[in-house]
Amino acid sequence: MIAQPAPKPEILARREEIVAALHALVPGDGVISDATRLKPYETDGLAAYRQVPLAVVLPRTTEQVAAVLRYCHCNGVRVVPRGAGTSLSGGALPMADAVVIGLMRMNRILEIDLEDRFAVVEAGVTNIGITKAVEGDGFFYAPDPSSQLACMIGGNVMMNSGGAHCLKYGVTANNLLGVKFVTIEGEVIDIGGAHLDAAGYDWLGIITGSEGQLGMVTEVTVRILRSPEGARAMLAAFNGIEIAGAAVDAIIGSGIIPVALEFMDKPCIHACEAFAHAGYPLDAEAMLIIEVEGSEAEQDELLARIKEICARFDPISLKVAESAEQSLAIWKGRKGAFGAVGRISPDYLCMDGTIPTSQLPNVLKRIGEMSEQYRLAVANVFHAGDGNLHPLIMFDANDPDSFHRAEAFGADILKLCVEVGGCLTGEHGVGVEKRDLMTVQFRPRELDQQRRIKTAFDPQWLLNPSKVFPLEGAPVPLAAE
Amino acid sequence: MIAQPAPKPEILARREEIVAALHALVPGDGVISDATRLKPYETDGLAAYRQVPLAVVLPRTTEQVAAVLRYCHCNGVRVVPRGAGTSLSGGALPMADAVVIGLMRMNRILEIDLEDRFAVVEAGVTNIGITKAVEGDGFFYAPDPSSQLACMIGGNVMMNSGGAHCLKYGVTANNLLGVKFVTIEGEVIDIGGAHLDAAGYDWLGIITGSEGQLGMVTEVTVRILRSPEGARAMLAAFNGIEIAGAAVDAIIGSGIIPVALEFMDKPCIHACEAFAHAGYPLDAEAMLIIEVEGSEAEQDELLARIKEICARFDPISLKVAESAEQSLAIWKGRKGAFGAVGRISPDYLCMDGTIPTSQLPNVLKRIGEMSEQYRLAVANVFHAGDGNLHPLIMFDANDPDSFHRAEAFGADILKLCVEVGGCLTGEHGVGVEKRDLMTVQFRPRELDQQRRIKTAFDPQWLLNPSKVFPLEGAPVPLAAE
Repeated sequence: MIAQPAPKPEILARREEIVAALHALVPGDGVISDATRLKPYETDGLAAYRQVPLAVVLPRTTEQVAAVLRYCHCNGVRVVPRGAGTSLSGGALPMADAVVIGLMRMNRILEIDLEDRFAVVEAGVTNIGITKAVEGDGFFYAPDPSSQLACMIGGNVMMNSGGAHCLKYGVTANNLLGVKFVTIEGEVIDIGGAHLDAAGYDWLGIITGSEGQLGMVTEVTVRILRSPEGARAMLAAFNGIEIAGAAVDAIIGSGIIPVALEFMDKPCIHACEAFAHAGYPLDAEAMLIIEVEGSEAEQDELLARIKEICARFDPISLKVAESAEQSLAIWKGRKGAFGAVGRISPDYLCMDGTIPTSQLPNVLKRIGEMSEQYRLAVANVFHAGDGNLHPLIMFDANDPDSFHRAEAFGADILKLCVEVGGCLTGEHGVGVEKRDLMTVQFRPRELDQQRRIKTAFDPQWLLNPSKVFPLEGAPVPLAAE
Repeated sequence: MIAQPAPKPEILARREEIVAALHALVPGDGVISDATRLKPYETDGLAAYRQVPLAVVLPRTTEQVAAVLRYCHCNGVRVVPRGAGTSLSGGALPMADAVVIGLMRMNRILEIDLEDRFAVVEAGVTNIGITKAVEGDGFFYAPDPSSQLACMIGGNVMMNSGGAHCLKYGVTANNLLGVKFVTIEGEVIDIGGAHLDAAGYDWLGIITGSEGQLGMVTEVTVRILRSPEGARAMLAAFNGIEIAGAAVDAIIGSGIIPVALEFMDKPCIHACEAFAHAGYPLDAEAMLIIEVEGSEAEQDELLARIKEICARFDPISLKVAESAEQSLAIWKGRKGAFGAVGRISPDYLCMDGTIPTSQLPNVLKRIGEMSEQYRLAVANVFHAGDGNLHPLIMFDANDPDSFHRAEAFGADILKLCVEVGGCLTGEHGVGVEKRDLMTVQFRPRELDQQRRIKTAFDPQWLLNPSKVFPLEGAPVPLAAE
């Protein structure tokens, strides 16, 4: 179980007064305080950890968000911002003495400018909702987390979310132009906008991926892109995971940047095929999904070059999708991978490390060895093109020993990522899950400088304070005074 | 003339002692303190402003940089970091009581990893030096400031430099993987590395473009890319600058992203042609340089589509380079544009605003009107594809009135950029030049939050303190105590 800071007793004692004050700031049905209705907010996509919050507020306007933050700041109340709650690192895990501020009612599309190719939306608009709003005109929003039907753009900004197509288009940070940002003092600041770059510091950058610790975002301006003329996916199946890893390295090393380059090992192929019936090769040890886009001629040329490279690695099969339906089926399997693994093992931990792509064969071999050592099955599915691993460690939540082994296995994988020159997290964030592993990646002085940045925004450490950093060493004590 | 903070009298009084201490930290010929040898350091690429520093230090190692910063921190001595001194916004302008720390002796290539496509170099390596080190193996480093023969990668990081080819490849921030960072306290921190993304805050992001105000960078890890199979440039000449602006908007709006899309108006075409003899169309009011890359077939297809779009705007001429030599000549003219304008007007101010590309026709028209109003010629040359303007305002430095009009003209252009939804600076930074214009872009609360970030890194405001922010309002008084 994860350690949570002790709640502040003086805040718990003032619960009724705080709820009444929140009702005054967000009238109508915008405040949730009864136990039954609070229950759904006790956890997020990292369902292993649970904690019911003091209250939940669902503001409809930036002004309401500002008023609630200002109240919390003046009264020393902790705040946990929440989008759709799809965080896989426990980024939206509540605290017993914290007010959760949920963005789901701020879901309006505010402006679409096709000429200058940007959209301004409220932070509670879903990721797919942006593309839906512009696809009729031939545009799309590029980052595509697997949870894109549910996850909200405000959460994407706070976790700097990625997705399968980020190999070509970059992650949220690369597609973000500006935000309306509310400080813990309740001041509203416009950062960035519909133009290139920004004067002054890159604070749009530091807010992106700040995991709700520096302030809240209520409106987001994103770059929208022209939809490609067309896209086609291909499957390449191999006899070994290390061979497939070497093929990835060869494709990327050749200078081709496919729009996506995804990797699945045998357990994952089987789980996904049972779910999606996409014609995945069940005899393969590993499979790549490679997608290219552009005109028909460009697609043909790129696919021919990729097939030629794959052919050097003695593939079991190379299969190019022959229709839009086939491409969709291929992607349905991949995008449903987490759910598909959930069908064979109800409980799993999804890791999110990154490594240099040349380390893929080595790291996959080591993960296989750890799987035997910890006696836990692992399914590997990940964004291979940019070295972003997602090993899914299967365990039984009813068996505490199995859960502890899964946690230790996960920590070992992430330490291995750092050891080979990679990083603790690619796109899921640190949250509570990797909080204590930050010391593997950073020295005390490095963590301290990052904490100073938080203090510069939030001197009392009220915003999502139990995330990102180990609890020990915070400049403001997180245990009860 | 630009206001400089008053020097601290107690530091000026201790000059000999400080120089002796620096000599002990950086032995040999690493400290410059005599007036003649200090003279070359009194200014940078923004030659309009000059100030001889207290001393110049030229360390050879990260440890020496750390030792000098630690000494300055303990003794309250201001520091101005310097790369090649090519800043166009006065980012390296010294202060009378400051020690300039120059990076030019830290110029070693430390590691090249072709398999994982990164290079680790010392901060004083020139921008072109990185490409030179890898081009034999078919790789290159993408951002290409016009000053790339001289400017250093450490300076590129601090100013988040761009260049003509950033339309496709992004600016420094998009090609940077990690830095070795030295704090004002003299602590050495590794940030980022040869992997995707980073755990914790995006402080690699906030350091990129921080203009020497948060710390110094001594080593840089950059992404290197496979060189394209080939590239070809074309020229498109038009009867009016607004027509050319509309053509840019149509090309970008079509979804094509050329590798570069550059704009020159008539005064600039004439100045560059006289210098480069590239066959520029002297009868045109405006000209675009459009470059595409890829296989021969890809180049042919993209050029055909671009020609078809340009043809809708009644062009005077459309000319595709037929050889590598012709492409080089076309680029020689563009990359030498600032120097070429310098041949017709010894003194000019180069502005650096960005605007949404749909505003190009409108903004170019307004700049033309201002040129008449201020009675100063202006040459427009800029990265049109990403809306990054570089109007060159010509004036006579021997005529103070002409200089003041040039400053006012420049400020009006940048205010216009902000007014139409753009930004004060695209790639040159704020420096001293745009310091006082930051209030046009940001409200006091927004500036204050950025200042808090600086204070979190540099509590005494010793690092390049007279840049980026208006002098009034700094949390640490910048005038003499």
